[in-house]
Amino acid sequence: MSAEASPANLSAKAAGRLPVALDAMGGDHGLTPNVDGAVQAARSGVSVLLVGDRVKLHAELGKHEGSSRLPIEVVDAPDVIGMEEHASDVRSRTGASINVCTRLVKEGRAAAAVSMGHSGATMASALLTLGRIKGVDRPAILAHLPAQGGFTTLLDAGANADVKPAYLAQWARLATVYLKVLEDRDNPTVGLLSIGEEDHKGSQQVVEAHTLLRALDGQGITFYGNVEGRDIFRSTTDIVVTDGFTGNVVLKLAEGEARVLLGWVKEALNSNVKSKLGGLLVRDSLRGLAERMDPSTLRREHLDRGAGAGLYRPRQRRRPRRQKRRAACRPRPRSAAGRAPGSGVRGAAGLRTAEPPGSL
Amino acid sequence: MSAEASPANLSAKAAGRLPVALDAMGGDHGLTPNVDGAVQAARSGVSVLLVGDRVKLHAELGKHEGSSRLPIEVVDAPDVIGMEEHASDVRSRTGASINVCTRLVKEGRAAAAVSMGHSGATMASALLTLGRIKGVDRPAILAHLPAQGGFTTLLDAGANADVKPAYLAQWARLATVYLKVLEDRDNPTVGLLSIGEEDHKGSQQVVEAHTLLRALDGQGITFYGNVEGRDIFRSTTDIVVTDGFTGNVVLKLAEGEARVLLGWVKEALNSNVKSKLGGLLVRDSLRGLAERMDPSTLRREHLDRGAGAGLYRPRQRRRPRRQKRRAACRPRPRSAAGRAPGSGVRGAAGLRTAEPPGSL
Repeated sequence: MSAEASPANLSAKAAGRLPVALDAMGGDHGLTPNVDGAVQAARSGVSVLLVGDRVKLHAELGKHEGSSRLPIEVVDAPDVIGMEEHASDVRSRTGASINVCTRLVKEGRAAAAVSMGHSGATMASALLTLGRIKGVDRPAILAHLPAQGGFTTLLDAGANADVKPAYLAQWARLATVYLKVLEDRDNPTVGLLSIGEEDHKGSQQVVEAHTLLRALDGQGITFYGNVEGRDIFRSTTDIVVTDGFTGNVVLKLAEGEARVLLGWVKEALNSNVKSKLGGLLVRDSLRGLAERMDPSTLRREHLDRGAGAGLYRPRQRRRPRRQKRRAACRPRPRSAAGRAPGSGVRGAAGLRTAEPPGSL
Repeated sequence: MSAEASPANLSAKAAGRLPVALDAMGGDHGLTPNVDGAVQAARSGVSVLLVGDRVKLHAELGKHEGSSRLPIEVVDAPDVIGMEEHASDVRSRTGASINVCTRLVKEGRAAAAVSMGHSGATMASALLTLGRIKGVDRPAILAHLPAQGGFTTLLDAGANADVKPAYLAQWARLATVYLKVLEDRDNPTVGLLSIGEEDHKGSQQVVEAHTLLRALDGQGITFYGNVEGRDIFRSTTDIVVTDGFTGNVVLKLAEGEARVLLGWVKEALNSNVKSKLGGLLVRDSLRGLAERMDPSTLRREHLDRGAGAGLYRPRQRRRPRRQKRRAACRPRPRSAAGRAPGSGVRGAAGLRTAEPPGSL
C-alpha cells in the first residue's frame, strides 16, 4: 500500500480529512454493491479506502468509468470473515478485511471503518483493535426504525444477546449524545422497552434497568419511563433501549412485517379489475410509501447525511487531567463515517444490510 | 345464584354441554362489549355465565331485546381487579370477577373461563384456583399473529417475563397439541425465536432451550430450529416459542406497526387528486386487507370457531394408573371456550384485548 501517493490520501489531505475504510468483501451480496457504494461516495467527495482482495477490487473498479480519478485507494486484505463463521475468528485471522479496516482507524489512517459484513465479527474486531472507553462496558448496534415522527433510534439491535441492566443505562447515554451531535436533537427522550408502562412491569433485569435509568434522569439523559412494542412506531420516545436479543428480534420483525404487509397491499390492488384500475392511479403515491416503510432506505438516508450507525466507539480528545473522570462518564462522539472528524473523535461503524421490502 | 332453574343451565343441559364463564367486568372498555359479546355468543347457541356486578349486568342486558330468552345467566361478583392493579391481588380478593369465573370451572359448573381483563391476574387466578398439570411448570399466553400462511401461533405472549429454558420446551408441546386438536393440523412445526438461524446464535437461555427442543424433535413435537423476527410473518413455522417478555414485545410491535402502516397507506391515498380518485376504486379491496392485518380480528375469528387462546390448562381425564405418567408428560387439551368438552378436558382462557388498527 503506497498511501502517500494515492489519490484517496491526496484528496483527504486536500480536504483536511481522513478517508473512510470500507470492508469491501463483507455482506450478503459480495463485493459489487460495496464497490458501487464506494464509487458513489467518492463522486460525492468522500475519500474511501477499499479494503479486500486487491485483484478482484481493481477488476470491479475497472467497470466504473473514470474511477481511477476518484479518491479511492485499494488496500489489500487476503482474508474475509464469512457470514456463517464465528465472530471470535477475528482474534486469529489478522488478514481479514474487517481487521485491516479497524487497524487503519487505530493507526490514524482512516476516520472510520464501515462494514456490511458479519455484525458480530465487526463488533469483535472493533472491540479488540480499538478498545472501549471507560464507562462503556459493551458497544451496541444502533438502528433507526421508521416511525410516525420520522424515526425511532433503537439500541442494542443485536450486538449483545446477554446483557446487564447497567449496559442499558450506558447505551441510553451514548444514544442521547449521538442524537444531540449527529441529528441536532435538543433533548432526546429515552424509553425502556418493557411489557407494560408501569415501573414494576417487565423482567427482573428490565425492572433493575428502570431504577438505574430513573436515577440518570436529568443527568445526561431524559428518561420517559417504560415503553411497549407499539410505542416504537408511535414515536413515543426518540430513543428505545433494550437488550441485543429483543432489539434484534424487533428489528427483523419490523422489516419482515413491512415486507409482508406491502405484499398484501399489492395483492389487494390486483384482486379485481376495479382495484387494478385504481392501482394505476395510486401507484406513484404508494411507491413513496414503500420507501418510507423500508428500514434500509431510512438507514441509507442517514448514511448519505454522514450518520453511520452502529457499534459507536468514540475516541477521547486529550483533556486536562481534572476533566478526565467526567469525560469517561460522558463519552462525546462528534463524528461518524464520512464526516470530518473535527474534534478528533473517531468511530467504528458496523452496519447491518437489509433487503428492501419489495417495491410496489 | 339459582343455577338449576336458569336458562343458561337448562340450555347447556339440553345441549349436553356446560356454559362458558365470562368475566364481564374485565377489560379496557368496561362491561358493555363483554355483554354485547355474550349476547352474540348466546344467539349462536353458546350458553354463558355472565360474571360481575349483578345490578349493572342486568341493566346492560336489558338493552338487548329478547335477552331474557337467551341462555345467559348472571352470576354476582362484587369485586373486579383493575387493569392497573397487581396480579397478586387475586390471592386476597376472593370476590373478584375473575376468581368467581375460575371457581365456576373448578366446581364443574362452567366449561371454561374467558376474560378480557388483567392478563397477569387471569393467569394468577387460573393458577391458584385450577392448578397446574404435572410436566408444565408455567402457563403461557398463546396468540395467533396474521402471517403469509394464515397465522403463526406465538407463545408465551406475556404471562412470564422471566423464564427457564425448560418452559419453552414445555410450551412447544402444549402448542403442538393445541394446533393438532383445535386446528386439525397434522404435524405443526415449532420454531425457537432467536437472532440467527444457526444453532449457536442467541442468548445463553435460548441456546439451552435449543438443545432441549432438539432432543424433543420427533417425540411429540417437530422442531424446525431457530427462527428470526422476520419468520413470524413469513409463516416459516406454525408455532414460535419464546419467553413472555420477547413475546409480548413482538405482539405489541406487530399490532402497532400494522396500525401505523395502515395509517400511512391512508395518507398516501389522500395525498393528491389522482390518488384520491384511485383510492375510491381500491377502497373495498383495502378494507379486506385491514381486517387481515389486524391481530384482534384474527383472534376474534378463532373465538367464533371456538378456539379460545391463552393460559391453556387442560384437566386430565381419569386414566388407569399405568397411563398416568405418560398423561402428565403429554397434556391433551381437547376443547376450549365454547366447545363441547367431550373428553372431559376443561380449559381456562385469558384473552388480551386489542384495539383495531383503524379502518381504511
